[in-house]
Amino acid sequence: MSDDLPPELRLRLRLYLPGGLMLGPGKADLLEGIAETGSIAAAGRRMGMSYKRAWSLVEEMNAAFTAPLVASARGGAGGGGAHLTAEGQSVLTRYRALIAATLQAGADDIAAITALLRPKA
Amino acid sequence: MSDDLPPELRLRLRLYLPGGLMLGPGKADLLEGIAETGSIAAAGRRMGMSYKRAWSLVEEMNAAFTAPLVASARGGAGGGGAHLTAEGQSVLTRYRALIAATLQAGADDIAAITALLRPKA
Repeated sequence: MSDDLPPELRLRLRLYLPGGLMLGPGKADLLEGIAETGSIAAAGRRMGMSYKRAWSLVEEMNAAFTAPLVASARGGAGGGGAHLTAEGQSVLTRYRALIAATLQAGADDIAAITALLRPKA
Repeated sequence: MSDDLPPELRLRLRLYLPGGLMLGPGKADLLEGIAETGSIAAAGRRMGMSYKRAWSLVEEMNAAFTAPLVASARGGAGGGGAHLTAEGQSVLTRYRALIAATLQAGADDIAAITALLRPKA
């Protein structure tokens, strides 16, 4: 019944991991932005996030995992570059897969809830 | 691989439904509390939520669905009673089933993420 999911539906999923890290859409989008822009600052900027905030989230993630998720060359005129490590790519891919699994395995439940909604005026 | 999920792991899932209602753990817990206590006030109280806030959430949910999720007898000395309608029970059951489906279908993804975590000191 996946095809019946209304396009306006959005799902946000937060994982509270053992050890205390919360992994949710913000950190996932930040990781994706770093992979796409090659820069922590640029990734944060396109999310409307300060440089300091973006760095803080990266440091939080890097500290929580055995290997850092983001490798970066801090400093330099351009602020250095950044990229996802294999572990960072893995965490991002698995998080996205978890959302996809939810939408697929939960399609009937979501459809049952939306079927009870008041039709839009 | 569901058995491999660490017990300390928690998952919070928010559905942003067509029409604008957000359905998440707070509203689900409130519905469950109403079913268990027979009272909107008591359900809110055990979540540390004000009577006004609990009523506001119930009214928001009732307005979003074709049929109300909570039926209540407002007023009276004891504040009247409340119970879930069939639709309210259905929405709650489906929301809980969606979480269960996520944990089951996403077990491998969750396990892959947690396997990369730094072991606790």
